[in-house]
Amino acid sequence: MLKFIATKGTISVAVVLVLEEVGADYELCLIDFAAEDRRSQAYLEIPPKGRVPAPVTEGGILTETVAILEYIAPHMLPKHAFACAKHREISYYLATTKHINHAHKLRGFRWADLQTSYDDMRAKVPQTMVESCAYLEDVIVGQYIFWAEFTPADAHLFAIRQWMAGDWVEIQNYPKLAQLQRSIAARPSVATIAEKGLL
Amino acid sequence: MLKFIATKGTISVAVVLVLEEVGADYELCLIDFAAEDRRSQAYLEIPPKGRVPAPVTEGGILTETVAILEYIAPHMLPKHAFACAKHREISYYLATTKHINHAHKLRGFRWADLQTSYDDMRAKVPQTMVESCAYLEDVIVGQYIFWAEFTPADAHLFAIRQWMAGDWVEIQNYPKLAQLQRSIAARPSVATIAEKGLL
Repeated sequence: MLKFIATKGTISVAVVLVLEEVGADYELCLIDFAAEDRRSQAYLEIPPKGRVPAPVTEGGILTETVAILEYIAPHMLPKHAFACAKHREISYYLATTKHINHAHKLRGFRWADLQTSYDDMRAKVPQTMVESCAYLEDVIVGQYIFWAEFTPADAHLFAIRQWMAGDWVEIQNYPKLAQLQRSIAARPSVATIAEKGLL
Repeated sequence: MLKFIATKGTISVAVVLVLEEVGADYELCLIDFAAEDRRSQAYLEIPPKGRVPAPVTEGGILTETVAILEYIAPHMLPKHAFACAKHREISYYLATTKHINHAHKLRGFRWADLQTSYDDMRAKVPQTMVESCAYLEDVIVGQYIFWAEFTPADAHLFAIRQWMAGDWVEIQNYPKLAQLQRSIAARPSVATIAEKGLL
């Protein structure tokens, strides 16, 4: 049994989606980031970083999205060593570039102190998100990122995809990204996490 | 044979260190970020992202530090699944938090457009670097991050460690980080990469 604290609209959606894909036995604890929930016991159980995702596993608490995804679904990674490395390359790109670009819209306080800086960062988000969508459009090679196989990187991208309209991205400009979104949305696991209140 | 473009003082030092640790057969192409070198053939061969590290392997070009490190040294990762996940958690923390914090000192143009924002970001770097050093000090459990075994995450941290004095971190405030630095500096691979002009 794995206990998993998740929040609608966040990157934790990627982890719940993969938990459903692998048929994991887990307890979902859904919280939102409202002030009241931040004081709740569930929230207080989130480890020192104070962010989700942070599943409590048999081994202990684990953080960082890609580390979690690879841990819960190692058999969903590409088998060939170089293909697996390319999968990891995209996962890291999502974590270190695309997610970070998005975070500059509402989380500028992590890296600056002035309101003028926050406004400046926010104004640049459409540009950085478009650049990173163009990069992804270039690397997607099939129905999913990696041909016909649904991998953890697809779940990761699906979670980030939630933010794109709010980040001023016009998804129809990226036909492969739009198709990938439709492919993932059609999976039964997506219907399940929608029923659970994650989407 | 793997061709590897590296730059002194950058995160690519982590990859060269691990290439030496595993006794890889590789061709090192050392460039710096001066304008002249940016126009050189070696620099132009760097893939679309235009950043190092980006080794040319038998399978093709690979980017993103942690993807590269795991690809070239899979046998250096912890064997147990949860330990391996914890290794990946720290690797991702280095890539998505500590490296990103540092990047706000000189690479603010990635996320903002105004000089006042760059100055504001730069002014916050001592705070964010101290916070991330405190986190790391808490997770290091031995001579290296993971007990007595030198892993890719140690090489990754060694490369980031190069920046700390310039980021206003007083390393003596972090005795475990300082000890880890000494343990790594004593390895023959570090002497080799110093001879090659990487340090």
